[in-house]
Amino acid sequence: MADVEMAMADLISQNDGVVTTAGLYHLSSGGGRVRADLALKSARALRLPRQVTIAISAACELLHNASLVHDDLQDGDASRRGSIAVWKEFGPNTAICLGDLMVSAAYSAIANAYTHHLPEMITHMHRRVSDVISGQHADLEAQCVSIDHYNNVARMKSGPLLGLPVELSLIAAGLSEQVATAMAASDAIAIAYQTTDDILDAERDISSGSLNFIALVQGDMASRARVARLHATKHAQAAIKIAKTLPSEAGDGFISLAEKFDPAVEMLEAI
Amino acid sequence: MADVEMAMADLISQNDGVVTTAGLYHLSSGGGRVRADLALKSARALRLPRQVTIAISAACELLHNASLVHDDLQDGDASRRGSIAVWKEFGPNTAICLGDLMVSAAYSAIANAYTHHLPEMITHMHRRVSDVISGQHADLEAQCVSIDHYNNVARMKSGPLLGLPVELSLIAAGLSEQVATAMAASDAIAIAYQTTDDILDAERDISSGSLNFIALVQGDMASRARVARLHATKHAQAAIKIAKTLPSEAGDGFISLAEKFDPAVEMLEAI
Repeated sequence: MADVEMAMADLISQNDGVVTTAGLYHLSSGGGRVRADLALKSARALRLPRQVTIAISAACELLHNASLVHDDLQDGDASRRGSIAVWKEFGPNTAICLGDLMVSAAYSAIANAYTHHLPEMITHMHRRVSDVISGQHADLEAQCVSIDHYNNVARMKSGPLLGLPVELSLIAAGLSEQVATAMAASDAIAIAYQTTDDILDAERDISSGSLNFIALVQGDMASRARVARLHATKHAQAAIKIAKTLPSEAGDGFISLAEKFDPAVEMLEAI
Repeated sequence: MADVEMAMADLISQNDGVVTTAGLYHLSSGGGRVRADLALKSARALRLPRQVTIAISAACELLHNASLVHDDLQDGDASRRGSIAVWKEFGPNTAICLGDLMVSAAYSAIANAYTHHLPEMITHMHRRVSDVISGQHADLEAQCVSIDHYNNVARMKSGPLLGLPVELSLIAAGLSEQVATAMAASDAIAIAYQTTDDILDAERDISSGSLNFIALVQGDMASRARVARLHATKHAQAAIKIAKTLPSEAGDGFISLAEKFDPAVEMLEAI
């Protein structure tokens, strides 16, 4: 993981200046590195070379962090991981420049994966970036009335960058025919993740009019939260079932992640 | 050029939605396609395959248009090429999403250049994107006091994406050792271009406090404009001299472009 951090820092430090300073500030604020971790796990399972593994991990994390920097600006969220968000600390213009730099750096990272699958990996990366941009845009504009529409936005917004680490590992391993399965698993994880997150953010989101699962169901808060937990569990368990069908345990990272967003696991543990 | 337009439209249309609509709106507003033209000329001179040529042209134009969409938002410019700027027509959030989509699409475009030079092309693309982001940021923050600093900002802001079409063609042709020469030529063109542009925009820039060559020199407006024209001529002629040293007439596109930003040529023609 230290190599991944170093690769990311290098790729945004080609010029001195405020944008790079803001980037190093953002990266040093932490974050779970969930996508890097998914990439390391799936790449290891598929026995990819070390350099390819680092390339995929760094690329996915850079894309994710680019999306956070721009999302915070778009949503007007002033804090991120307990620190001041980039746009608030360095100004909106720097935040726009930094997000751009990180998207570009992600493709430069993947170019370090010396494999003849590189063109296909890049084409797929762009497909998933397109998806996540549509998702973010739909979330910003959301006039959400149905659970179906909610699932769709959650899937589009969070699914692509959760799936990408595993999808790129599969492509690099010559297993493109498995990509659709990984996409289905990441879609389901995205819904479980988003629903779980919504239970925590319910009050804030409802008062600000943001999209939240809790706002879509009826009843008192306790029963709405119960419906949300069931929704998360259903999708987390679907994700696990799909991830198990991936070859060579390439889906093990998905499985651990889905378990974290399955409230039923927590409830069982509490017994 | 029709193939280049089609490649660009395709790459931003992977999902329906407002961001794609905004992208097609922006691309259809025209523009000189100066960078696509430079790529077509240098790639033809270097006898690159058709697919590589289209890939380089589309990638460079997408990066340039991404920078316009984000710059207009950052600078608060409400119009672009006689149309309403994307951020003003579709909102700032859509403009942020669209710029991101276009940066990503540029890398997807270049992945269609089936050549073993692809990793080097991508690494170089990111280097130049880093440069242009630094230049844009320096321009936004500019407290410019010297001609040297002015030249530096102009070079960083406009040089990278003017040079990139030729630089990528050279790399694709296996002539990476010529890239530094192309970069020197595009730096000089960028200064000539920016200075010429500043003469036209002098009044507006000075009243808004934007960086402008005219604000850096002394005297009445007529004599300031004369100094600016001399500055542009000096750099345009330097660019031509450098471009002529590129092999196989790969620098011919640079030469025609530099002539456009050489006020001395215009003055001679007027005699």
